Amino acid sequence: MRTQVGILGAGPAGLLLAHLLHRAGIDSVIIEAKSRPYIEGRIRAGLLEQGSVDTLTEAGLADRLHREGLAHDGMELRFNDASHRIDLHGLTGKRVTIYGQQEAVKDMVAARFATGRPLHFEVEDAALHDIATDQPRITFTLDGEMRELRCDVVAGCDGFHGISRAAMPPEVLRIYERVYPFAWLGILAEARPISHELIYARHADGFALATMRSNTVSRLYLQCAPDEDLSQWSDARIWEGLHQRLGGVNEGPIFQKGVTAMRSFVAEPMRHGRLFLAGDAAHIVPPTGAKGMNLAVADVRVLAQGLTAFYRGQGMGLLDRYSEICLKRIWKVQRFSWWMTAMLHKFSDNDPFEHRVQVAELDYLVNSEAARTGLAEQYVGLPYDV
Amino acid sequence: MRTQVGILGAGPAGLLLAHLLHRAGIDSVIIEAKSRPYIEGRIRAGLLEQGSVDTLTEAGLADRLHREGLAHDGMELRFNDASHRIDLHGLTGKRVTIYGQQEAVKDMVAARFATGRPLHFEVEDAALHDIATDQPRITFTLDGEMRELRCDVVAGCDGFHGISRAAMPPEVLRIYERVYPFAWLGILAEARPISHELIYARHADGFALATMRSNTVSRLYLQCAPDEDLSQWSDARIWEGLHQRLGGVNEGPIFQKGVTAMRSFVAEPMRHGRLFLAGDAAHIVPPTGAKGMNLAVADVRVLAQGLTAFYRGQGMGLLDRYSEICLKRIWKVQRFSWWMTAMLHKFSDNDPFEHRVQVAELDYLVNSEAARTGLAEQYVGLPYDV
Repeated sequence: MRTQVGILGAGPAGLLLAHLLHRAGIDSVIIEAKSRPYIEGRIRAGLLEQGSVDTLTEAGLADRLHREGLAHDGMELRFNDASHRIDLHGLTGKRVTIYGQQEAVKDMVAARFATGRPLHFEVEDAALHDIATDQPRITFTLDGEMRELRCDVVAGCDGFHGISRAAMPPEVLRIYERVYPFAWLGILAEARPISHELIYARHADGFALATMRSNTVSRLYLQCAPDEDLSQWSDARIWEGLHQRLGGVNEGPIFQKGVTAMRSFVAEPMRHGRLFLAGDAAHIVPPTGAKGMNLAVADVRVLAQGLTAFYRGQGMGLLDRYSEICLKRIWKVQRFSWWMTAMLHKFSDNDPFEHRVQVAELDYLVNSEAARTGLAEQYVGLPYDV
Repeated sequence: MRTQVGILGAGPAGLLLAHLLHRAGIDSVIIEAKSRPYIEGRIRAGLLEQGSVDTLTEAGLADRLHREGLAHDGMELRFNDASHRIDLHGLTGKRVTIYGQQEAVKDMVAARFATGRPLHFEVEDAALHDIATDQPRITFTLDGEMRELRCDVVAGCDGFHGISRAAMPPEVLRIYERVYPFAWLGILAEARPISHELIYARHADGFALATMRSNTVSRLYLQCAPDEDLSQWSDARIWEGLHQRLGGVNEGPIFQKGVTAMRSFVAEPMRHGRLFLAGDAAHIVPPTGAKGMNLAVADVRVLAQGLTAFYRGQGMGLLDRYSEICLKRIWKVQRFSWWMTAMLHKFSDNDPFEHRVQVAELDYLVNSEAARTGLAEQYVGLPYDV
C-alpha cells in the first residue's frame, strides 16, 4: 500500500487532518487501534472555541454541529457564594459551542467514508519505520494480515498513549510536565442543567463545574483526590458536594461516573524527520480551560496548510516551522489552562494565603473589564498564528 | 498629655495620616523610635501610583514631588533577549512617578513641623494600654522622662517590626504569609540609567530590574539567594549579572549595596478596639509590584476619612468598616505583587515547565491589549474604594 500521508489515529486530530487534506486533493490512509463504536462513544471534551467551529464549518463538517450544538455567549464564575457572569460575546465578539467530542468524531467518520478514502479500525501491532527518511513506512495487522503502508509523511494523531511520540528518538525529545494534587470526579445525570451556561466554582471544599450535554442532561464535576475511590462516593454524597459548591443543582439519575486525571504535558519538538505529532500525542492540558480538542484543531490547521504547500511544490518551509508555530499557541494555552486550574482549585489544606489570593484574583477579575476581556479572549480562543 | 489621635511611627503612613487629620482640624501626636536623620535618609520604595500622587497633591504635600519626581508613562518587560514596552498612560490614562520614599518623608516632616503639632523622634520604651477601651493610652520615654499620652484612637503606623501589631491580642489576629526562595541584591550607582523607564527582566539566570533615583543615579537589582553573602559579589560580578540579564547597562561607581528580602504578609483584622493598623504594620508585599508605600497611602486615606467622620459626629460607621475596606484592596495588591513576582523570578533550577509557562505568559501579555491593560491598571493603581 502507498499513500501520501499516513495518519495514525481516528480521533478529532486525525480525522480533521484527513478531511482537510482530502479537500486539498491529498490522499491519506487513517489507521485506528480501536473500533468504530468505541471512538464514536468515547466521552471526552465538549467545548469548542469559535475558531474550532469556524474551522469545522469551512471544512464542511459542521452541519449537525450548527443544528445540535449549544452556543454559549457567556460563562459564570462562582466564589464566596455568589455567581458573576463573564460576557464572552460582549467582550470579544466571539462565542463557544457545546458539542460532545464523540459527536464531532461521528460527523467526521461519516464524512471520511463519504470521500471513499481509507479509514481502518481495529488495526493491531502498528509500528513506524524510517521516519527520519523521505520514505517512512507504517506496518500493522488488519484482519489478521500484516500490511505495510509507504507514505511521504506520517501524522501521529494517536493520543497521549499512542506509538507516535514513542517512535521519536528519546534524545531529541524534551518533556515538560506538571502533575496536580487533585482530579475531577465527573458525572452525567438526567437532570436539567442549572444554567444555560457553564458555571466554574471555587469553594473552600474544592472546585466544581456545572456544564451540560443537552437541555436534559447535566455534566457535573467535583474536585477530588487523584487516587479517589469511586466506591466512597454514593450518589447522595456527590449531590451534597455539588449543592454545596455550586449553590444548588438539579438532581436526577446518574448514568455515568468517572475520575478525570489532571496533567499538563508538552513534548518538544512536534516533528522528527517525516513524522509530525498533533493533538494529545504531543500535549495534554488539564480540562479546566476546555482546550484539549481545540488545541488539536489548531495543530491540524497548521499541519494541513504545511502539507498543502508541500504538495503544491512550495517546499517544506511551513512544515519546517510546524513545531515552532504550534508550540507558540500550545504554551499560551498551557499557561491559560494552568492559570484557570490554579485560580479555582484547592491545592492545600493549610495554605490560607493561597485561598485569599485566589479569592482576590476572582474579585479583581469580575470587577475589571480588562481582566474579564483577557479571560474571555483566551476562553473563546486566541487568533490563529497562520 | 492628651490628644485626639496618637500616632505610632513617622514613616509615610503616620506622617500622611497626621497631615490629613490636621487639615480636617483633628489633633494628633506622632512618636517615632528612630531619629529624624535616620528616617529622612532611609532608602525604601520609590514608585508612586497616580492615586498616591493625587492624594499627596490634594493634601498640599507634593510641590517638590512635582518639581523633582520623574513621571513615567510606561515601563518595559524584557524576556528572551527582547524588550517590550507597556504603554501605561496610553492604556489607562494614568502614570506613575519615581520619587524616593525618603524624599516624601522629608516633605511630610517639614509640613508637620510647619503645623506646629507634635512629632517626637527617638522615643523609647513605647507601649500601648487599654486599646480595647474608649480611652487608650501610649506610654513612652522621651529625653529620659516617662510620658503618658491619652487619646481617643491610636494609629499603629510603626511598620512590620513595630509594637502596634504585637499589642493586639494574638487570638484575634489571623496571619497570612508567604516567604520566597530568593531575595534582591540592590545597588545604587553613579551611572546614567539605560532607559527613562523601568525595565523588568525575566532571564534564565533570574530576575533583574533597572530603575533610577535621578538622571545620573541608577538603581539596579538582581535576583539572589535569600541568605546571599554580599562579600561574594564583587562589583565586577554584579555588573556582569546586570549586563547579562538586562541586555547591557551603564556602569559607574557603586555607592550602596544591600539585600532586600521578599515576603508576602497580611495580618487581619487591621483594627482592635481603638487601635488601627496602617501600612507595613499590617502587611508586607514583595517589592516587585512597587506597592508598599502605595498601600500605606491607601490605608491612610480610609483611616483619615473614618476619623474625620467620627469627629464630625457621624459615628464609627466608616471606622467599623476600615479593616474590611482596606483588606479588599490589600488582597488584590498582594495578588498582583505575587503574580509579578511569580512571572519574573526563577523559582527552581529544575522545573522547565515553570520556565516555559513564564515565557508564555509574558508572550501573551505583550501581545494582548486586554492583558497589557490589566497589568497597567494595577501597576498605576486600581481606583480607591472610598
